[in-house]
Amino acid sequence: MMPAVEIYDTTLRDGSQAEGINFSVQDKIQIAQKLDELGVHYIEGGWPGSNPKDAAFFQEVKKISFRKAKISAFGSTRKANTRVEEDKNICSLVEAETPVIAIFGKSWTLHVREALKTTLDENLRMIEDSVNFLVKQGREVIYDAEHFFDGFKDNPEYALKTLQVAYEAGAQILVLCDTNGGTLPFQMEEAINRMKEFFGGDNKVKWGIHAHNDSGVAVANSLIAVDLGAHQVQGTINGYGERCGNANLCTIIPNLKLKMDIHPITDEEMRKLREVSRFVSEIANLRPNDYDPYVGKSAFTHKGGIHVSAISRYSATYEHVPPEAVGNERRVLVSEQAGRSNLVYRARELGIELDPKDPRLLDLVRRVKEAENYGYQFEAADASFELMLREALGEKVKFFDLEGFRVIVEKIGEENTAAEAVIKIKVNEEVIHTAAEGDGPVHALDNALRKALEEMYPALKKIRLSDYKVRVLDEKEGTGARIRVLIQSTDGKNSWGTVGVSTDIIEASWQALVDSIKYGLWQKKKEA
Amino acid sequence: MMPAVEIYDTTLRDGSQAEGINFSVQDKIQIAQKLDELGVHYIEGGWPGSNPKDAAFFQEVKKISFRKAKISAFGSTRKANTRVEEDKNICSLVEAETPVIAIFGKSWTLHVREALKTTLDENLRMIEDSVNFLVKQGREVIYDAEHFFDGFKDNPEYALKTLQVAYEAGAQILVLCDTNGGTLPFQMEEAINRMKEFFGGDNKVKWGIHAHNDSGVAVANSLIAVDLGAHQVQGTINGYGERCGNANLCTIIPNLKLKMDIHPITDEEMRKLREVSRFVSEIANLRPNDYDPYVGKSAFTHKGGIHVSAISRYSATYEHVPPEAVGNERRVLVSEQAGRSNLVYRARELGIELDPKDPRLLDLVRRVKEAENYGYQFEAADASFELMLREALGEKVKFFDLEGFRVIVEKIGEENTAAEAVIKIKVNEEVIHTAAEGDGPVHALDNALRKALEEMYPALKKIRLSDYKVRVLDEKEGTGARIRVLIQSTDGKNSWGTVGVSTDIIEASWQALVDSIKYGLWQKKKEA
Repeated sequence: MMPAVEIYDTTLRDGSQAEGINFSVQDKIQIAQKLDELGVHYIEGGWPGSNPKDAAFFQEVKKISFRKAKISAFGSTRKANTRVEEDKNICSLVEAETPVIAIFGKSWTLHVREALKTTLDENLRMIEDSVNFLVKQGREVIYDAEHFFDGFKDNPEYALKTLQVAYEAGAQILVLCDTNGGTLPFQMEEAINRMKEFFGGDNKVKWGIHAHNDSGVAVANSLIAVDLGAHQVQGTINGYGERCGNANLCTIIPNLKLKMDIHPITDEEMRKLREVSRFVSEIANLRPNDYDPYVGKSAFTHKGGIHVSAISRYSATYEHVPPEAVGNERRVLVSEQAGRSNLVYRARELGIELDPKDPRLLDLVRRVKEAENYGYQFEAADASFELMLREALGEKVKFFDLEGFRVIVEKIGEENTAAEAVIKIKVNEEVIHTAAEGDGPVHALDNALRKALEEMYPALKKIRLSDYKVRVLDEKEGTGARIRVLIQSTDGKNSWGTVGVSTDIIEASWQALVDSIKYGLWQKKKEA
Repeated sequence: MMPAVEIYDTTLRDGSQAEGINFSVQDKIQIAQKLDELGVHYIEGGWPGSNPKDAAFFQEVKKISFRKAKISAFGSTRKANTRVEEDKNICSLVEAETPVIAIFGKSWTLHVREALKTTLDENLRMIEDSVNFLVKQGREVIYDAEHFFDGFKDNPEYALKTLQVAYEAGAQILVLCDTNGGTLPFQMEEAINRMKEFFGGDNKVKWGIHAHNDSGVAVANSLIAVDLGAHQVQGTINGYGERCGNANLCTIIPNLKLKMDIHPITDEEMRKLREVSRFVSEIANLRPNDYDPYVGKSAFTHKGGIHVSAISRYSATYEHVPPEAVGNERRVLVSEQAGRSNLVYRARELGIELDPKDPRLLDLVRRVKEAENYGYQFEAADASFELMLREALGEKVKFFDLEGFRVIVEKIGEENTAAEAVIKIKVNEEVIHTAAEGDGPVHALDNALRKALEEMYPALKKIRLSDYKVRVLDEKEGTGARIRVLIQSTDGKNSWGTVGVSTDIIEASWQALVDSIKYGLWQKKKEA
């Protein structure tokens, strides 16, 4: 019988070490909430001692109550030859006021000598003091044995000794870290077996695994550790992390559940996996990897020639697991049929029942495909999709006609730029011609459009943008590239997403803005 | 003593099944030549029976003589109930005139019944006939046991029987394929051990491994197979392949050489690994994965301040292998977490020796931190960083003064927007006043600036933007949010990154554009 396995997510700490990732406090809060939806047991929020942003996160996150996840703060053992209660890093951990603290110490004599510049004995005392002190503060202490596998290779007795000290000082779990990511599966196995023997066999001590992907085997190492009895797996969403990243939880979790019959999260939670993966890549502003196992766009994509019906009947012949289990979908390239049932399914989610044989559907499939090929993405733009769907079905959603606009950005010498927009629209045969300034051209245009509309549609005052995202699609085209704008709007109660695509950021923003206002006013009209 | 291990590359066949890859015959020839430089033993060129393009490739490739690699053609066993010499697929394999032929047969009874719709006995005869016939044509025959691991799980006796038939018919090597990519390391181990027993122990039969990455463990499975005695590893460059891809040779080869002391290619060949990886992604027109082990841009990139001070002292503390071994390089990023030691290290890489006690350094650290707080990010903007550093040290890098610019975007009715830029600059006391259109406001401004400068600085014609990224920083601010623009530029030889931040996308783009041009012209000036 396998012990239960806990998932310890470190996207917000180790993940944020990835090149190209720079989370704001607000980003981190949003991701933490999403991780809680996914059902992870621990969320490592940051290293409060290393930068003020992480300290600010812990102040913010206290206000939120989580469904299942416990928040953890990360930090190092006390400095050499200092008193633990006076150590700045240790104090900042206490001040983070999290129920859980992960503290890392050195297992590798090379690091003790070269990085800490202290003695092997003092390092043991540093581990002991730090764990002991934090346990006495009433915290659940997780001990991360940094460089454990390298340390073990170099000096197994010392590496095991550091674990023993942490254990006896009260650490609830010992996490074996492959910090440099250089350990291969069979090498890892040997060290783990020796560690288990050292503590007296299976389940004598609670232990976990923290793998990095520098050798491309972080997922395998994590699974092998679980197979050998690990109680906790540490990793990140999409495998984000320094250098080649951490162990990818989006791969590990489905492997555990679907292949090893180990269930750290529920089936329902796992169906959100793809959504969580996308959400985090969107916040990180990193392009999702289409080829990622389980959650990638191509993960269940079949080339033409394979019949949909055949796949449905004998999916095991082509797919190692069902895509729905992780919230992904099967894609069969060149298949009008698949497109149609997909639309029927999406329409049903919006409360619109469509007959799969409705002739308007074929035209709509073609239009959605064309738009998606050009770069539109409706996953985060439900309102634009719904407007498109309703217009295709003959419903009229229109509140004004544009006669034209002009946006001017000017810069003189070293001064900052100034932006202004002039707009002319027609509402119920009345022409409105007005102008506004803004913090940039899109802001100016947004201001001018609102100014023009608010008199006729006072409900607009309640609608505001809560999120504005810009993604360059074909980056190789330089400043001539296509740009996708995603806008999230809210009226305080509901929120909705809209999209626009163009080589001109102002045109793209205009499309998303107009959809945002259309949808908002249309909702108000329905309510009235 | 480990047996020698051969590398069998299938980038041109299985790799080309990846979504988004479409190689021309000429692409394939170029890649084959590059693979030969890398020193792989086999190059699987395609499936001549499946499409005319692959047949054309085999006609072309005959004209080339390779240094080390043997070309292989891929195809299936004969159809059920046909004579092997009349089978179209088998005939096209013979006509490809390659020294090596890889032939795949079914190991999984489910597939024999559902896909081939024939009997288990006939399937065995198909394998026997096909291998036998090709061996008699004087070809080296490789037998790919498709779905071996799934077949073994379902009916081990039958799966092993198919191998035995292929072996007795004269196949030189039996390749165990995890076609659906669903097998985990410990599951694979069991099947391999049973197979070895079946053939009478170690080295009684030559065998290989062909893994897919649907469970994220293709590299680990390949290495474990080698550890258990595999004689051949099949895979692709960058792990390209259908769905989640094949086993990544760019990860496997360095793992074999640097961690397992197995040397399928020479040290000198391996130093070309990163170049080969980039070459293939360039031809495939797929963006390289920065986080790939060994060959990724981030693979030896250090960000955290704590690591950087340690790494300058002793690189093995944070790097599992030396980056030079695979033709990659160490990079140290300047980021929030970084302190003074990071800056000193970065400056040294740029050929500038800074005294850690230099008072200008403190000012620079402060300025970098301020800029980063505002939203600048220098990780991907090495050129902006260098310009900032050199200017802080008193160097003057300037090629023009801006008098002013005006950018106008206009939209009339439902027409698309039109963008135009007017610019006035001063170069060596001469005033240049000009204008240009573009696909959007930033493109128009880019065009106008280049138009103004190119007459005075013809070197500018060689400099072009290769990448343009836009990131909205405080998305909650809606269209008034700060925007970060990252530009990557190239002169065909070198490439460099620059950054700009403003609430106005045009101002932000302007900053990054100006830095890009400054840096490019300054490099040219140094060369001259």
